Amino acid sequence: MRACRPASRLEIEYCTPCRWLLRAGWTAQELLTTFTTELGEVALIPGTGGVFDVRLDGETVWSRKMQDGFPELAELKRRVRDRIAPDRDLGHSDRR
Amino acid sequence: MRACRPASRLEIEYCTPCRWLLRAGWTAQELLTTFTTELGEVALIPGTGGVFDVRLDGETVWSRKMQDGFPELAELKRRVRDRIAPDRDLGHSDRR
Repeated sequence: MRACRPASRLEIEYCTPCRWLLRAGWTAQELLTTFTTELGEVALIPGTGGVFDVRLDGETVWSRKMQDGFPELAELKRRVRDRIAPDRDLGHSDRR
Repeated sequence: MRACRPASRLEIEYCTPCRWLLRAGWTAQELLTTFTTELGEVALIPGTGGVFDVRLDGETVWSRKMQDGFPELAELKRRVRDRIAPDRDLGHSDRR
């Protein structure tokens, strides 16, 4: 509940020359749909150099360069869930 | 140029019970496509109560309740342009 835990800020930094805005926008909307009450905001941040990083309250949840690829959405939701809504059942996203 | 003017933060606060996330997400992507270098970030902010507000560096650019409706995208782009890229020609969006 928001009363107990301040709403989180999630950032998606994406490479604009790579044309990853649509991917970032889709990711943002998926996360906002799943974590409507837990996320205070999702920020889309234009970047360069092949960046596709997801940060939650300043902590890196996914980095394309470190993880060597884009996040699979179910995996990304699990990572976010584990941090801000650990008791939440993600349904399909929890079954591998 | 970023060197002269710090990148701006644009916020879109939308009513989640009204299901305006897709509209907010679309608006965010349109603005990021047009103002790639001027916008430092666009934040999608879940809200309630029929809110659909657009703020630029804290200043309200559009408020659904004050303006009695949703922003027409060309008009919204002109308002953002006038604040952060006044010399920019918006092409079709500048012709009424």
